Order: sequence, then structure tokens, then C-alpha cells
Amino acid sequence: MTTVTLDQIQSPSDLRTLGRRDLKDVADQLREFVLQSVSKTGGHLSSNLGTVELTIALHYVFNTPDDRIVWDVGHQSYPHKILTGRRERMSTLRQQGGISGFPKRSESEYDAFGTAHSSTSISAALGMAVASRNLGLQRRHIAVIGDGAMTAGMAFEALNNAGVTPGVNLLVVLNDNDMSISPPVGALNRYLARLLSGGFYAAAKNVGRAVLQHVPPVLEFARRVEGHAKGLVSPATFFEELGFNYVGPLDGHDLDALVPTLENLRALGGLQFLHVVTRKGHGYKLAEADPVLYHGPGKFDPSVGIQKPKTPPRQTYTQVFGRWLCDMGQADERLYGITPAMREGSGLVEFEQRFPERYFDVGIAEQHAVTFAAGLACEGRKPVVAIYSTFMQRGYDQFIHDVALQNLDVTFALDRAGLVGADGATHGGNYDIAFLRCVPNMVVATPSDENEARLLLSTCYQHPGPASVRYPRGAGCGAEVVAGLETVPLGKGVLRRQGRRIAILGFGTLVPAALAAAEALGATLADMRFVKPLDEALVLALAAEHDVLVTVEEACVMGGAGSAVTELLGAHGLCLPVLQLGLPDAFIDHGEQAALLRGLGLDAAGIERSVRERFQAVLAPRFGAKQASAAGGQ
Amino acid sequence: MTTVTLDQIQSPSDLRTLGRRDLKDVADQLREFVLQSVSKTGGHLSSNLGTVELTIALHYVFNTPDDRIVWDVGHQSYPHKILTGRRERMSTLRQQGGISGFPKRSESEYDAFGTAHSSTSISAALGMAVASRNLGLQRRHIAVIGDGAMTAGMAFEALNNAGVTPGVNLLVVLNDNDMSISPPVGALNRYLARLLSGGFYAAAKNVGRAVLQHVPPVLEFARRVEGHAKGLVSPATFFEELGFNYVGPLDGHDLDALVPTLENLRALGGLQFLHVVTRKGHGYKLAEADPVLYHGPGKFDPSVGIQKPKTPPRQTYTQVFGRWLCDMGQADERLYGITPAMREGSGLVEFEQRFPERYFDVGIAEQHAVTFAAGLACEGRKPVVAIYSTFMQRGYDQFIHDVALQNLDVTFALDRAGLVGADGATHGGNYDIAFLRCVPNMVVATPSDENEARLLLSTCYQHPGPASVRYPRGAGCGAEVVAGLETVPLGKGVLRRQGRRIAILGFGTLVPAALAAAEALGATLADMRFVKPLDEALVLALAAEHDVLVTVEEACVMGGAGSAVTELLGAHGLCLPVLQLGLPDAFIDHGEQAALLRGLGLDAAGIERSVRERFQAVLAPRFGAKQASAAGGQ
Repeated sequence: MTTVTLDQIQSPSDLRTLGRRDLKDVADQLREFVLQSVSKTGGHLSSNLGTVELTIALHYVFNTPDDRIVWDVGHQSYPHKILTGRRERMSTLRQQGGISGFPKRSESEYDAFGTAHSSTSISAALGMAVASRNLGLQRRHIAVIGDGAMTAGMAFEALNNAGVTPGVNLLVVLNDNDMSISPPVGALNRYLARLLSGGFYAAAKNVGRAVLQHVPPVLEFARRVEGHAKGLVSPATFFEELGFNYVGPLDGHDLDALVPTLENLRALGGLQFLHVVTRKGHGYKLAEADPVLYHGPGKFDPSVGIQKPKTPPRQTYTQVFGRWLCDMGQADERLYGITPAMREGSGLVEFEQRFPERYFDVGIAEQHAVTFAAGLACEGRKPVVAIYSTFMQRGYDQFIHDVALQNLDVTFALDRAGLVGADGATHGGNYDIAFLRCVPNMVVATPSDENEARLLLSTCYQHPGPASVRYPRGAGCGAEVVAGLETVPLGKGVLRRQGRRIAILGFGTLVPAALAAAEALGATLADMRFVKPLDEALVLALAAEHDVLVTVEEACVMGGAGSAVTELLGAHGLCLPVLQLGLPDAFIDHGEQAALLRGLGLDAAGIERSVRERFQAVLAPRFGAKQASAAGGQ
Repeated sequence: MTTVTLDQIQSPSDLRTLGRRDLKDVADQLREFVLQSVSKTGGHLSSNLGTVELTIALHYVFNTPDDRIVWDVGHQSYPHKILTGRRERMSTLRQQGGISGFPKRSESEYDAFGTAHSSTSISAALGMAVASRNLGLQRRHIAVIGDGAMTAGMAFEALNNAGVTPGVNLLVVLNDNDMSISPPVGALNRYLARLLSGGFYAAAKNVGRAVLQHVPPVLEFARRVEGHAKGLVSPATFFEELGFNYVGPLDGHDLDALVPTLENLRALGGLQFLHVVTRKGHGYKLAEADPVLYHGPGKFDPSVGIQKPKTPPRQTYTQVFGRWLCDMGQADERLYGITPAMREGSGLVEFEQRFPERYFDVGIAEQHAVTFAAGLACEGRKPVVAIYSTFMQRGYDQFIHDVALQNLDVTFALDRAGLVGADGATHGGNYDIAFLRCVPNMVVATPSDENEARLLLSTCYQHPGPASVRYPRGAGCGAEVVAGLETVPLGKGVLRRQGRRIAILGFGTLVPAALAAAEALGATLADMRFVKPLDEALVLALAAEHDVLVTVEEACVMGGAGSAVTELLGAHGLCLPVLQLGLPDAFIDHGEQAALLRGLGLDAAGIERSVRERFQAVLAPRFGAKQASAAGGQ
């Protein structure tokens, strides 16, 4: 029996000193470590339990870090992190100053490419493979991609391009667990299931065929006959037609199949496609039984599993949206709910159950989601696209070209707008105000609490054109949400506090903090509600009645709501000091949301402090209002 | 013989009164009309000559406008426009106030969906089909998509989603002309060529099989055997695996094949995929011989064809870029040139010839193009992505998540930034400054003439991080371009004219017009060169030395370069009047570029007029400099 323990493996080169027979023991220890570690820190669990053997096999067979492994999405990279020198730092996972929950180039030379958004791995690995080809390197490049991520158009674009790129060493490992975050949808998944229906294929036989294929011209017809004959059992034509040598499906938990197959594929080089089948949550019965629940849990006791909290947690914005969607969907049969593979994350579970005919999970396909909604809107339907702010970036062109330009009635419910906490910079919803408000016809609404979110959702929904409502991850300030489907006037803000000299214009989630600051400062506070159309009358009135303006938003200052205010002032030839508070021009790493905001000076105390520092003169009691506009500066 | 003439067909219902035998004659007249019309107005030619018969057959068989036809890209929709009541308006094509070169919902009820960017048609038609299904309508929905557009991931996303959407009537017509704008690339195209290698399929037989297929359960195994047996001749499995009934390939110029096949497909309903093969430029020998030359010609004499101009036209920015790319590529073997299917449009023809190992046309695949570049950059290569501003919108997420976040050394050469003229709103490059500058790590350069374009390309290329250079469609002011690969200081502007009281800050192509205005106004003019990093020292110095600032850019004012200036002033607590000139918050329709700019007040006279109107008081000779900052307002 082996005596290898996990802490003896400081890097993959240690792993590669082991005999094949030791690997199973390493896998058991690694799986236990992942379970214990994630149960203490929270993070992604099911996916990481599913990739233990695959990770070991890849690092055992390939010469990492010189060979490049790109982990698509990357939330399944914990075993990889543990094997590449970060075992001890797993206790800091996703915490401020700790290691990231995703591969990150700045964190390790083993992280060949930073990932987090889906379906980038084949493109990135192909780029690396082309560089190696041109530099005359024999390096191998591996993209590990899930079956969910494979449905995104970007993955298809990369396969399509790779298939005609000669001389590259690119191995695509399809990690088929029949499950992205939501259960999979789409014809490709159904196709993969049919591939599986033939049962596991003997790896050795397949690789033999692969070798044959590398003497192509005379054998092309034979290959074709064989391919289509085999097609009756396991019709691998889809990936082969795109130019890859398809091998699989293999049991992704069987090291005795994985290691020799990968060794053969490594020796072959060229365009290789390995289809492995894994089980999310593998080895931890509770996660196997409910991989969605264990997809990204908080802390829990592995011996008892995730428990329902005794006191129900505060309602999240996602829940507010989900409730509203059902209520509005009940009232208006023209409403359609669309999600790009984020049923749970975006709060559409109940909507799907109640209105299956009007619910569409279109797969990880943001581009298609937006234009599909445009098509529905052409026929008088009223689609609501539920999409994270950061994923809206993927449908940006479709939003401009198909929705806004045609002034179609599509509502975008932008979840995770602003800072997102543990997911970090890759998922930051920092840019949506800037990139949406510059587009004609668009409405950009920024609710300041849960009830405002409901009001603004109803308002934007009733607006007969493109509109967006941005709201943050997690719970808000705990405002009571009033039932009903009332609307508020489009493009009108509300005065929340009348003060003097200083007017704070709040856009969205930081309004409660700004209100506290306004009280401390004796300042006026307006909840502007809309970035676009901006409440011009309110801004102009506040400008006329105050010495200085302060804008506050949980979004990048550059091009943000504050700039909308200064553009308006400029267009009216007005000139008074404006302090724009918001997110800085930097990527914000992972950490706890409230702590991050505090660190950026965007909590109540920080807002007050910034205002006092800038406008000392205005705030000084001796100061006369009339000179204020000149004194704002310096 | 028939006596039908084209002017008797005012709408498709007139077409449908004809006998099948008359259609050939209509096709001949329609083809001749397209040729004569486009030769007088300029516009797209090759693609429209290729779709004459298909257009006639679709309108003859389907009950338009109640049945919906979505023309992907839409530049092949001239025959459709002519048959749907716009024959006489073809003389106004792509001219200001005239009809659009693309389908446009506001132009005709027959234009079911506005298109122009590639690969949106299946998503839109699927949305419409779902609406019809839920409303209980028997309506048919047809997406006509080229083989080039089919390579975009978005089309795959839509097919993937359609394949699992029950009860919809969706016919995808693949118009396979083996040619997008550039010759096609990618494994899918190679696959389609293999489909064709089996020769044209008898439509009747295929449709018979299709009928069989609609009694699925017991016949599933038979279908499978047949499909894979047939695969040896014509392996249609790709689209069938995605859930469509594949019919084809058919000769797309053979009305006797098209009409009965479409009639059968119409009767069948459900998910149908018809593969038709057409020839770009069909029926006009010169265009058949060189479809790229005749893709989008200006005016020409059809009897002699396109002639080389006697005096060479002014150098375009695209040519300046193409020249620079070759020169820099010669000097630095780390340079890689990447285009998403725009080899000619982006000026990479010579680069491909000279550096084929470092040239990549990745297909219509902007998402993949950007992340592929990121992969190259990870390995120390220096990719240059040549992409139209409007298509950069398609790679926006990949730019943020894969390039900027990892601070990778990728240069974006943004062609067609600003107004684009005849292509109109769908292709407008209005938004790039706003959506790029809000992203951390990014450099945004705005050359003011051809020589500046070369200087800033070299500068951004040498900058070891993400950077973009935006330049307009067509020729510039005719500045002499100095050879060499000199750079300028990053983030530094230059003073072009010293004046007083008013400082104009020019960002990009409007600098020459702004200089003329500055001369008339006695104002200072700076060519700012960079929106980001902004030359803060220069802005602050200009602010200190002048009473008012004017910013000028050929991009949307909202969130644009002018807002970068006001953000800086605000951050420094400065307060002086800023007039932001640029594109308004509206979609700008097609027209001649210079005329459009004039209409928007962005020529020299317009800039001068705007400044005089706003700053009358500053310009009045009696006015003292000291009161200026208060007088700018009201």
C-alpha cells in the first residue's frame, strides 16, 4: 500500500514521481480535502468533486506548467489549485486578500489563462497553440470545457476555427456532467446524451483508430465508412466533421482509463477531442443527490449537509425579481421570461413551474437570448430578459442592433449589478450604466431598495420600449416590498431629504448610505431612480437651489450616472462643482461586498468623509451660499 | 409566352397570381433591374444577383407579410425590396432620406426584422415562431442565412435552442454561396463543401423522407440507419443532430426545384432546414468572375464593368492601417493580424500574402477573435485585432474579461468609428469611446488624420497592454503619412493652435474641422490624441488659461471623451463651462458622411456656430476674462 499523503504533493512534478497505482489514493485524499475545505470557506463544491480524477490525470500526464491547461469557467479548478501549491491557501478562498475562486494568471504559473465567464477556453488555448506552433514548440494545450459551456456560440466559433488551423496541438476535453448550473438545455446536450447511450467506449480501441487517422489520404474513405457505421452506436460525427479526432466517451472517474488515454492523446498531438463523463458531487452522496444545492454553498457541516437556516435570511433582490415576474406574468400573458442558463441564479424557478409555455432557458447563449427576445417583441410579446450585469456584456451588440435600434419592447432585469463579492473582478457589474446609457432609446433604472426594485420593474415593463433595471447581488436594506404592480413616473426622481447647500443625487443601491451621509451633513438627498431618462427638471432645480452637487452610484464613475448629470449641466451652460462618487477605474477583486464598499469609501461614513474633504468651505458655518460655486475647487 | 412585366408586381400578392412558368421571366427582369439599379446608386450587387430566384420562390410560396421572412445580414434583400413595393424607390437606395440598404421594420411591413449585423436571423425568427405557437397561429417563419453567417456562434446558439423548442414553425434556409465577404474559413464551410460533393439531391425524395420522419417513434431506428447510410453520400447529420429536418442541397437558381420544395416544407411546418446553393453575381458574368469586387461597388456602367479610376482616389484610413500592419509586421515577428471575416474591409489583403503564418481570418466570430488574441498574448505574441467599431460590440465581454482584466497586450484597430455613411445606423461606430474608456487598463486613442493614425497605431502597439485606435470610414483630410514606426508619448496631447479665452479639445477625426473653427474664433486648439489615458496636465493647463472649454468628438456625447474631461475637472474640484460637441443621443440613418456631419453641426461652420451661440459673452470684445466662468452659464 502507498504511504503518499496530499501534503507531500507541492506541485505536479511531485505527482509525476508517483506510480499510477498511487493515484487513486491521491484522488481519495484530494476529494476529502476539497469537501472539508469548501465546507469551511463556502465556494463551488459539486463541480470540484467531479473533476478530482481528471485533474490528477491531466497533471500526471502533461508537463505542466509548460504544457498549458485552460479550465473553462474555472469554478472546477480547486483540485488544480490544491495540486499546484495552493493547498494551504485554500482556507483563504474567495476572501479579501485570499486566493481567487477562479484560475488567475497573477496567482500561479499553472493558471495559464484566467477564466470565469463561460466558453472562452478553446479560443484561448487555440491562441496559445498557434503561438507554440509558430515558435516551433512541442508544447501541448488543453481546454477543459463542460457540456453547458459547449453550448455557447463562442465555443462553436473556436471549434470551427481550430478545425482549419493546421499544425496546432490542441486537446479539447469535454467534461460532460449533463449539467451546467441549471440543468442543460439545447439540442447539443441532447446529442451528447445520445452519444452516451452507446455506453462507454473502450479507450484503447478508439485511440487505435486515432492513430490510423493520422495516415489520412488513402484511408479517408475507410474512415468515413467506419465513422458512419460506428455512428449507429456512437455517432461521433459532430466533432469529427469539425476536424477533431473524437475519443470517448470515457468514465471521467476511472484513472485507469483516463491516464493511458491522455498519454496516447499527448503522444498524438494535433486536434484531439476527448469526451469524458463525470458526475457533479462525485463521492459525496448529498452533493450527488442534489448537485444544484451543492453547486455553490456557503459554510456547512459535511457530516450533516446543508441545513435550512432557522431564521429565514433576508429577502434577496433576486427573490424580489422572481416574485415580481410571477405576479406580472399572472397579470399579463404577454410577458415571457428568458434566462441564459441561470434559472436559479436569476430567480426563475417558480416562473418556470407556473408558466412553462412562456419560460425560456436558452442555454449559455446571451447573444441569442437578446435577439430571441427581440423576435418575440416584434410579435407584440413583452419579454423580460433576466441576466447578470456582467453577462449583459455578451449580448451588447444584440442589445444595440436588434433591440434598441428597433426600439423594441424588451425589459432587461440586470442582477448582480455593482460589486459582486466573492466572485470578484470577472463578475463585476461595474460597467452597465456606462455601456447602456450611451445607447439611444434605452431606459436605465437604478432602484435604491427592494421595494423600489419592484416599482421600477413594473415601470420599465410598462414602458413600450427597451428598458433595464439594475439591482445588486444579495439582500438589500430590508425594505418592505409592497405587493401590487404599481408604476412610478418614468424618468422622475424623488426628493428623500431636504437640506441645504449640498445636494446628493443617489442612483441605486447606495441611496441608503447616501441618506445617512446626507443626514450627517445636513444635505439634500434625491433618489434619482433613473439614469436615463435623467430627471432633468430635478437636477436643474437641485443645481439652482444648492451650491454643490454630489452624485453617488455603485458603478464606474467613468461614463456613469454622475457624468449624465454633468453632461446635462454642460448642455444647459450651468457650472457648479460636482463630486462624482462611485467605483474607481480599477478591477475590484473578490471580498465581502460591504467590506469592499467600505474600503472604497462608498459606505455612509465614506460618502460623508468624501463630501467633507471636497467641500470643507461649503460646510464651514461661516460660509455664505453665494460664493460656494467658486469655492468648490482646489 | 408570358407578358408579365416587373412593374405589374406591386406586391407579392401580384406575384402569387402568376403561373409557375411565368416566374423564370420575372426572375430575368428582376435580375436585370437589380443590375441596372445598383449600377446607378452603388450598393451591394453580387449577393443580390444570387438571391433573385430564392426571393421569388419564397414570396410565391409563403403568404407574406403574414408569414415572416428574416433576411440575415440583409444586404441581399434588394430583390425582396423590389417585389414588396419599393421598386421605384430603389433609385434612392442608401441615400439620405431614401430607402435603407438593409431590411428595416419602419420601411415596410414585409421587413419582419431589421438586420445588418450577421447571424441574427434564426434567433429572431425563433422568437417570432414561439410567439405564433403560443398565440395558436399557423404562421410560418423563415430565416434566410448565408454560409458565412452560419459560422457565427450566435447562429449555432439559435439552432441549438430551436432544436429543443417544440411546436414551432421555423424554416432555416441556408443560402450557401461558399463566400461571405471574404472567402469563407472554418470547419463548417469545409463541411458544407463536403455535403455538396455528393451533388444536388432530388428534392422530392428528401421531402418524402421528411414526411416519414413526422411519424417518429417506430421509425426512429430506420431513420437513423438511413441517415447514416446516406451519410456516405451526403452526411446531413450536423443539422439533423441539432433537431432539424435537413433537405438539400438544392440549386438555388432552379425555380422548378425551389418552388415545389418550399411548398412541401411549408405544408410540413416544424423545424425545417433547407440547404440551397447559389452563386454570387449569378447572371452577370463580371460579378460571377469576381464577386468580391462586385460585393459593394459604387456607380458603374454595367456594359463595361467597374473601371479603375483614372486619378487614384485619396488614401483611406483602412489603407493606412494595412500599410502600417505590414511595416510593423515586418519589423516585429511577434505581430499577429486577426480579422473576423473582414480581410478586404479591414485592409489585411497584403498582410495575409506576406505573413500567412501570422494572419488569421477566424470567420464571423468576434467573440472568438478577441479571446484567441488573448491566448496569443499570453504567449508573448502581440496580436492586432482589426475590427469595425460596430462589430467590437460583439466582442465586448471578451475584451473586458479576457483582455483588459488580464492586462494583456492586444491592440484593437477600430475601423469605421464614427458615422459610416451609406450603411446607416446599424453600422454606426458611435459608442466605442463610451464603452471602451470605462474599462480599466484600456488605452483609447483617437487620431485626427492619416499620419496621426499611423503614429498612434505604433504607439498603441508598443504599449504593453490593451489599447485601441479608432479611425473613420473612408479617406481623411489627405495628410501626408510619414513612413517609419515612430511613437508618440502615451496619454499626451499636442497644442495645435494657441488662442485665448476658448480652448477646443479635439478627439479624433473632427480636429481639422475644429481647427478651422478655432481659427475663426481666435480659440486655442489641442489635438488630445488620447481619450484614455487623458492628458490631465494639458486639460488642467487649458482650464487654467481659458475661460471655457469645448470638447469635440465624432462619437456619442453620452459617456464620451467630453465626459472624460468633465470627470477630470470634477475630480480636481474645478468648475468652468464645458461645451460637449459630438453625436447626439439618436440613431443616425444612412446618408453621405460629410452631409450627415454638416447636418449635425459637426463641420467647421457648425462647430464655430455652436461655440458662438453658447459663449456669446466670452466672445464679445468688451468682455473681461475674469468673469468668464460665471458667464458661461445661466
